[in-house]
Amino acid sequence: MTVPHLKWVKYKYYKIPNLGMELRILHINLEDKSLKEEKIDEKTVRKFIGGVGIGAMILLEKAPKGIDPLSPDNPFIVMTGPATGTPFPLSGRHHIIAKSPLTGAFGDANSGGNFGAMLRRTGYDGLVFYKASDEPVYLTIMDENNDGVAEVKFRDAKHLWGKGVWYTEEKIRHDLEVGSSGSIMSIGPAGENLSFISCVMNDENRAAGRTGLGAVMGSKRLKAVYVKPFLLPPIYDKEAFNKVCNEKRKKLAENDITGKALPTYGTEVVTNVMNSLGNYPTHNFQKGVFPTADKISGETLKDTYLVGTKGCWGCTVRCARLVKIDEPPYQLDYEGAEYEGVWALGGDCGIDDMKAINKAYAIINDMGLDVISYGATVACAMELYEKGKIPHEKLHGMKLNFGNAQAIMDLAWMAGYRTGFGDDIALGSKRLAEKYGMPELAMQSKGLELPAYDPRGMQGMGLAYATSNRGGCHLRAYTPAYEAFGAPYKVDPYTTEGKAKLVIDQQNFFASTVDSLVSCKFLTFALGPEDFVDLVRPLTGWDWTVEELMETGERIYNLERVFCAREGTGTKDELPKRLTDEPQPEGAAKGYVVKLDEMLKEYYELRGWKNGIPTKEKLIQLGLEDYTPYIA
Amino acid sequence: MTVPHLKWVKYKYYKIPNLGMELRILHINLEDKSLKEEKIDEKTVRKFIGGVGIGAMILLEKAPKGIDPLSPDNPFIVMTGPATGTPFPLSGRHHIIAKSPLTGAFGDANSGGNFGAMLRRTGYDGLVFYKASDEPVYLTIMDENNDGVAEVKFRDAKHLWGKGVWYTEEKIRHDLEVGSSGSIMSIGPAGENLSFISCVMNDENRAAGRTGLGAVMGSKRLKAVYVKPFLLPPIYDKEAFNKVCNEKRKKLAENDITGKALPTYGTEVVTNVMNSLGNYPTHNFQKGVFPTADKISGETLKDTYLVGTKGCWGCTVRCARLVKIDEPPYQLDYEGAEYEGVWALGGDCGIDDMKAINKAYAIINDMGLDVISYGATVACAMELYEKGKIPHEKLHGMKLNFGNAQAIMDLAWMAGYRTGFGDDIALGSKRLAEKYGMPELAMQSKGLELPAYDPRGMQGMGLAYATSNRGGCHLRAYTPAYEAFGAPYKVDPYTTEGKAKLVIDQQNFFASTVDSLVSCKFLTFALGPEDFVDLVRPLTGWDWTVEELMETGERIYNLERVFCAREGTGTKDELPKRLTDEPQPEGAAKGYVVKLDEMLKEYYELRGWKNGIPTKEKLIQLGLEDYTPYIA
Repeated sequence: MTVPHLKWVKYKYYKIPNLGMELRILHINLEDKSLKEEKIDEKTVRKFIGGVGIGAMILLEKAPKGIDPLSPDNPFIVMTGPATGTPFPLSGRHHIIAKSPLTGAFGDANSGGNFGAMLRRTGYDGLVFYKASDEPVYLTIMDENNDGVAEVKFRDAKHLWGKGVWYTEEKIRHDLEVGSSGSIMSIGPAGENLSFISCVMNDENRAAGRTGLGAVMGSKRLKAVYVKPFLLPPIYDKEAFNKVCNEKRKKLAENDITGKALPTYGTEVVTNVMNSLGNYPTHNFQKGVFPTADKISGETLKDTYLVGTKGCWGCTVRCARLVKIDEPPYQLDYEGAEYEGVWALGGDCGIDDMKAINKAYAIINDMGLDVISYGATVACAMELYEKGKIPHEKLHGMKLNFGNAQAIMDLAWMAGYRTGFGDDIALGSKRLAEKYGMPELAMQSKGLELPAYDPRGMQGMGLAYATSNRGGCHLRAYTPAYEAFGAPYKVDPYTTEGKAKLVIDQQNFFASTVDSLVSCKFLTFALGPEDFVDLVRPLTGWDWTVEELMETGERIYNLERVFCAREGTGTKDELPKRLTDEPQPEGAAKGYVVKLDEMLKEYYELRGWKNGIPTKEKLIQLGLEDYTPYIA
Repeated sequence: MTVPHLKWVKYKYYKIPNLGMELRILHINLEDKSLKEEKIDEKTVRKFIGGVGIGAMILLEKAPKGIDPLSPDNPFIVMTGPATGTPFPLSGRHHIIAKSPLTGAFGDANSGGNFGAMLRRTGYDGLVFYKASDEPVYLTIMDENNDGVAEVKFRDAKHLWGKGVWYTEEKIRHDLEVGSSGSIMSIGPAGENLSFISCVMNDENRAAGRTGLGAVMGSKRLKAVYVKPFLLPPIYDKEAFNKVCNEKRKKLAENDITGKALPTYGTEVVTNVMNSLGNYPTHNFQKGVFPTADKISGETLKDTYLVGTKGCWGCTVRCARLVKIDEPPYQLDYEGAEYEGVWALGGDCGIDDMKAINKAYAIINDMGLDVISYGATVACAMELYEKGKIPHEKLHGMKLNFGNAQAIMDLAWMAGYRTGFGDDIALGSKRLAEKYGMPELAMQSKGLELPAYDPRGMQGMGLAYATSNRGGCHLRAYTPAYEAFGAPYKVDPYTTEGKAKLVIDQQNFFASTVDSLVSCKFLTFALGPEDFVDLVRPLTGWDWTVEELMETGERIYNLERVFCAREGTGTKDELPKRLTDEPQPEGAAKGYVVKLDEMLKEYYELRGWKNGIPTKEKLIQLGLEDYTPYIA
């Protein structure tokens, strides 16, 4: 299954005038094993940048309207952006995009590790997979003949089908005899088995977690992609760019969050803060205070099982935790869970056993499950169980009460392989709660499970969850930066005033910068739009401004929404009734609900949307006139 | 995938002169989905009975010499016998036969539950599967049109592939809308993934455990067989037969073992006895005394988690245990482990946690793993680990010391799906120990893991292990009956005197009775050869004698050995050096080794064998003249 050599010139770190900021996309047909190269011209790149922006553009072009997300016609898009794999701070990330099996709407997820940087250094800024292979395959992109030319090969993956992510990576490295060089993106059994809450893993424990995109890769019988770098991405003005990058890295190092809290305690530093604010959801969002949250905090981890830290490619923050647990029964010596994972498996399920949480997290990564959706679905199952909705014979004696630490492990294997009650967990919370007759117990928006922030005590977060294009998500607008940490400044979490603008600004800012350039969201704790403009100018040679940055972000955010509008799903900006109608029962946020309706009205006005759908005028204003037929 | 109706007359419980004791075999070609019926004439039936006897005959005829056990040419044979499914006591069993992937020699295993009786009541005494299906299928045999005629259908099993045994049974019953009627035999992921230690399960928790035959079924992409009874097997003299059956059932009820010990404590009643005799192997047979064995004994189970008992079809002993464990972390409400399983997962691995053992046992059944071979292989891995032979990166922090109760659970999932270090466990102990450079640590004979008796304190058991045709096994001659329990009489366990004859007599007795008729081995605690003659005469109308019974058994045992001789493997009657060269270090059997050589010499003389292979004269004497070319 070899294809002919592809002809990319070996880049060097200086301006190549006739190449400019074009992006190089490899289109891969998995059915007939054909390849096609395409250059996206600089004008289009400046309009949509890369990452999720270019990804949304490609998705709208290549995905036929109304397709089944698990049909061969759903393209599976892997994107980097102009920043990826350059000295741009924290740029070791990539973005994947497809129609979501979980939500039926715009699906995308972002991951760290090395894969993005390594992919871009093969000469490709993006990969788009079409159709499906008859048999399981994996793809390799490397300069096998050492002639500066990428060779792309389809390889038999029958022996990898059914295997966990770790085994898959180990086996591929062994088979290819590449040692520790290069990087692998793969799916686990969850993706193969078309689980709605499957993710796409890379570099053993990094996850492009959300919206179930592992199942899209699985439906194409694409087990993995191995990339080995040998080229350098273009930079307009290398010297100037390096200087700015160093300045911004200094800013990151001097910032309290990116320079101190995250390196020292990892993302779990958020646990105690959220709990003290009464915004740490527990027992499936039944309340916002978990009394023993400190037992699973970053501070406690540091004092117990932490043995080291780890960073993604080119990262100076190093938020990943290396843990070593020697005590039985749950032993581990590997990467530990981050905040969202600890919350999903721990706080939300009423579990405060650090050992069990980290061990379950490891199984979940190996199975290729989205830890947020998995944990939240188990929490939903626990509430269904306590309400007597899950028949005894489904569980063979497992008592699925909140706090059952063994259950999060057993169900991880079962959900990965979709056997036993795990087959129900693999549905995600919305389908699970519907199946067992209490749809209101699914804590989701648009089908995507909500993450680790109870929005009743942070109004902006509620609006952000509801208006995220991919469903309940904290990564389109991260209002806790303002509503909890005061970074860069504090806003009142309980008021709805100004939250529409706050959320929109963040959504637009994130869309054109971290999600499209592509780099890490943690940059935005320390760097504002001006900083990004400083970085992008010498990188690209563009006369970028903050205004163009924000308008580009708005364009991209609207483009994602256009996809949802075209598919007729993902435009209802809603929250579970529990968050809008049931006051927070205890803690610092006691008595509050999310006043979504009033914020949403203002949000739509500021967005220029009607009922969650961009107006024709708005699209034209943003240069999206070609897309107006989709909102009709 | 339907085939035309098959034409079997509906039997009734009386003599059908023109049918007699013929056996009805269905030959099933999984490649072209064709069926062929065959009658085995009464003369042949009287010569080889049924079960393992007829199975060995078919295997020798249908398996080409030297085939790869996982190739499509290895026939997969499911047999009942003249007793199965009749009022014959404890006759709810069946036997499966194929060339063993684990040992490369004669492979067979026997299982209880309902499947055997239900199969026979569809009108078929045996099924022989040939070739392999392109896609996963399962077979159904039932009278769908309610016209007294078996309809055999091949059905799509793609949706069952990758699923555990329990889910598979649940799904098949749901799909067929058959409620709880009929019975299912299936493989779990272990069989699908061609694990060398996979088994064939039926009725949720019953296992045809040994010699890795799940992989043969998996290699044929045969996921399951569902049978629904509607016919009655023939009986020569119903009235006389029922009378004898009742007499023998009374004998069973009055016997201390089958009437008291097994019903009250289950098979785990053996734990404390073996431990007190210093014959309870622990830490991979490093010693014969496990100080805390009582914590996992049948007596302790009865006082703790036992909530009921369960019997196979038509069984009055009911040795199966129903357990309910509510305490975390290991909860279960299902069938619990029996003696061999408790030993393999517990005693041999140095684990005395009843909860963990029963939970692991449940996972192992769901995965379709042979619990003896699995536990013994984990014990072997534990010794390899403690001797520093297993690299750290293989285990991600799991400390595989003896006593690690979580490991037997994690590795069960991983071995079933052959991922991570589970892929090595799936090899079985011989291949595992060879891979990690210490082959002498595999406690096996002919590749089959030894079960729960340290033979250093029971010489006969050592000879029985070594001379078993399928490898290290306690079920061809169960000398502990004599050497430990005194049933029917006590013999000195430490002497080698008379052990050759004892073992040969049991091997022959078992071969023609329980393994071929087919019924349960526990009968032989209460019933001797005379009792079987009493039962067989009215069942078949034959003028059977004890001499014919024993000669038939000898014929069958020799026929199995002929297969081993033909394949050039399975004729070396050996034990691990640990048992023959390292004296038992402590306990009642301290200082003893198995004196195999002197027993083996006598055994071969009495058998009429040379170097483990029957002589031509012996075969002719037994009426096996047709098979003499195979020993040349």
